[in-house]
Amino acid sequence: MKKIKLNLGKRNYSILIGNRILKNLPGCIKKLNIGRDALIITNPKIKKIAGAKLENSLKKGGISYRFECVPDSEKSKSQRIAFKLIDKVSKYAKGKRVFIIALGGGVIGDLSGFIASVYKRGIPYIQIPTTLLGQIDSSIGGKVAIDLDCGKNLVGAFYQPSLVLCDISLLKSLPKKQLRAGLAEAVKYGIIKDKLLFSYIEKNYSNILNLNNQNLEHIINKCAAIKAKIVSLDEKEKKGIRTILNYGHTIGHAIETAGRFKAYTHGEAIALGMLAAQRIAGKLKIFTNQKEEKRITDILANIGLPSKIKGLKLNSIIKAQSFDKKFIHGKNRFVLPKAIGRVIIKEGIPLKIIQKSVESLRE
Amino acid sequence: MKKIKLNLGKRNYSILIGNRILKNLPGCIKKLNIGRDALIITNPKIKKIAGAKLENSLKKGGISYRFECVPDSEKSKSQRIAFKLIDKVSKYAKGKRVFIIALGGGVIGDLSGFIASVYKRGIPYIQIPTTLLGQIDSSIGGKVAIDLDCGKNLVGAFYQPSLVLCDISLLKSLPKKQLRAGLAEAVKYGIIKDKLLFSYIEKNYSNILNLNNQNLEHIINKCAAIKAKIVSLDEKEKKGIRTILNYGHTIGHAIETAGRFKAYTHGEAIALGMLAAQRIAGKLKIFTNQKEEKRITDILANIGLPSKIKGLKLNSIIKAQSFDKKFIHGKNRFVLPKAIGRVIIKEGIPLKIIQKSVESLRE
Repeated sequence: MKKIKLNLGKRNYSILIGNRILKNLPGCIKKLNIGRDALIITNPKIKKIAGAKLENSLKKGGISYRFECVPDSEKSKSQRIAFKLIDKVSKYAKGKRVFIIALGGGVIGDLSGFIASVYKRGIPYIQIPTTLLGQIDSSIGGKVAIDLDCGKNLVGAFYQPSLVLCDISLLKSLPKKQLRAGLAEAVKYGIIKDKLLFSYIEKNYSNILNLNNQNLEHIINKCAAIKAKIVSLDEKEKKGIRTILNYGHTIGHAIETAGRFKAYTHGEAIALGMLAAQRIAGKLKIFTNQKEEKRITDILANIGLPSKIKGLKLNSIIKAQSFDKKFIHGKNRFVLPKAIGRVIIKEGIPLKIIQKSVESLRE
Repeated sequence: MKKIKLNLGKRNYSILIGNRILKNLPGCIKKLNIGRDALIITNPKIKKIAGAKLENSLKKGGISYRFECVPDSEKSKSQRIAFKLIDKVSKYAKGKRVFIIALGGGVIGDLSGFIASVYKRGIPYIQIPTTLLGQIDSSIGGKVAIDLDCGKNLVGAFYQPSLVLCDISLLKSLPKKQLRAGLAEAVKYGIIKDKLLFSYIEKNYSNILNLNNQNLEHIINKCAAIKAKIVSLDEKEKKGIRTILNYGHTIGHAIETAGRFKAYTHGEAIALGMLAAQRIAGKLKIFTNQKEEKRITDILANIGLPSKIKGLKLNSIIKAQSFDKKFIHGKNRFVLPKAIGRVIIKEGIPLKIIQKSVESLRE
């Protein structure tokens, strides 16, 4: 088992990564001193796959628990479902010291963390990500949120978990589509910060998609370490350091929103968003290395991620992008690649260049 | 103009106290570098009294603004109204760097601060309290929240404002009932921390109720300084220091909730809550000084605060109290007086003693 520390003073926590490590959970809970009553938020699919394993572990460790299921959809990150769950928590918490366990992917993690952040002005929560995307990215760093009709993640907080536990065995029943989505974010880490990781994915993507433990553990460790370091330096995204994690997310989120979270998974949309950012960088002469351009296009295609935007109108994507949180001082803000392993932040990209770049990806 | 600093590292801010100081606001906004577009949350009554003054000040300073009014009621601290306002903010904020101004009493401050805390994971906000209670207590310290059906302030955050501006001239049209409510919290500060302040209120309550500037400024300065010091030491109420500010609030909140926020104002309920805590302390032989007991009872009566709970069932108060946030490890937690100027925190008070103490106050 590998342990990565996230250094945030009073809000320090550990990311545990390993195979079949769910059994260590009750011991961790006791050390954290966060109570012995867990409200587990998950969805019916994940409960079927991972619920019994988690139950066994908690039962053996003498932790009482209760499951609350939400639909398996981005739509669960809604005001309605969040407040329904808050009501459940407040009833379960009567006379108890309750903490939350988020058992699931990014949707469950974001929603559970948001509830933990606001209920009684904040109660502890533990992330147990069950998707590759969750284990390498979304469960780490305390960005929690729900969506508004006009945009994704517009209501939320920076609220750190008490623990992130990444059990690789939980990935075994993951649909290929979700593995691909997770790998899209791993490619992102390669492009923004680590060209060796990028090469590793180029060499091993097939093994990873076939769930080879060693390869999975390698990329989860690498990505989690990069994220932990970046978050430790710039927890609340105020220094322009954490911002680079948004690479591919400006247009990516807009594609998700325009597709009403049905047309594309988060990872697929991020893959398209990264391609859009690359084209913008190309038009601005920021990214000029055609060999590297081909490597990025190839690896995304090899993983099985989309390279064309299908069935969405240009206008609906541009409109969704205008609500983006990354707008600052009234200007848009993009993370653009300079080379594999290096990105820059650029504000005030002309709308025409964004439109042309997105349009060139539409089929 | 007096300036009190709240020391919270990166979250430092100032509390400005003085007569007719609203004119200084645009200068402060520019120094804070939080943008030039304000969404002002208020209610129609306050807008009538203070809206034009605020508008003049902002106009002169070149700050653009927009008013959003909510009903003048604790019911405005609801999920429905909060999300309606978030929708308004997100529309106003399109392409702008927006901050929020809370112009009003505790309800407006709590609601506005909550919206600022969650929208885009946090945008800046300024507190301009227009009630005595707001100026001495609720606007300071970053406790923001909305209510659930089952209890007050159950959904919220610790989220500090960028500035608190207490303009005493705004109190001039305040109904007496609200002045009395504010004075109840001032008495609280006297009992928990400052017997000289308590004596000052005994001597000057009549002048204060008659809106004497000098007396008002004195108690606002004193209370704000106590609160700023306590919050600086224990921002998130984790060290048992900030907890003492909840004196009178455990039963007080339960009385407010049981009376559906109509039977009693916050200050009236806190006065009754302080009397209940005093009786509990008496029964536990923690508070035994009968002379001081009489001084507390007398000052609350002189201010014109209720000394009896009317029209509420014992059970509904006890039930509301069981949802209280201050429950910890499954035990209730009370702040109890030892003497004027000194309180202690006590956990696990037997239900019978609470019931008897509340019952003795029922009429």
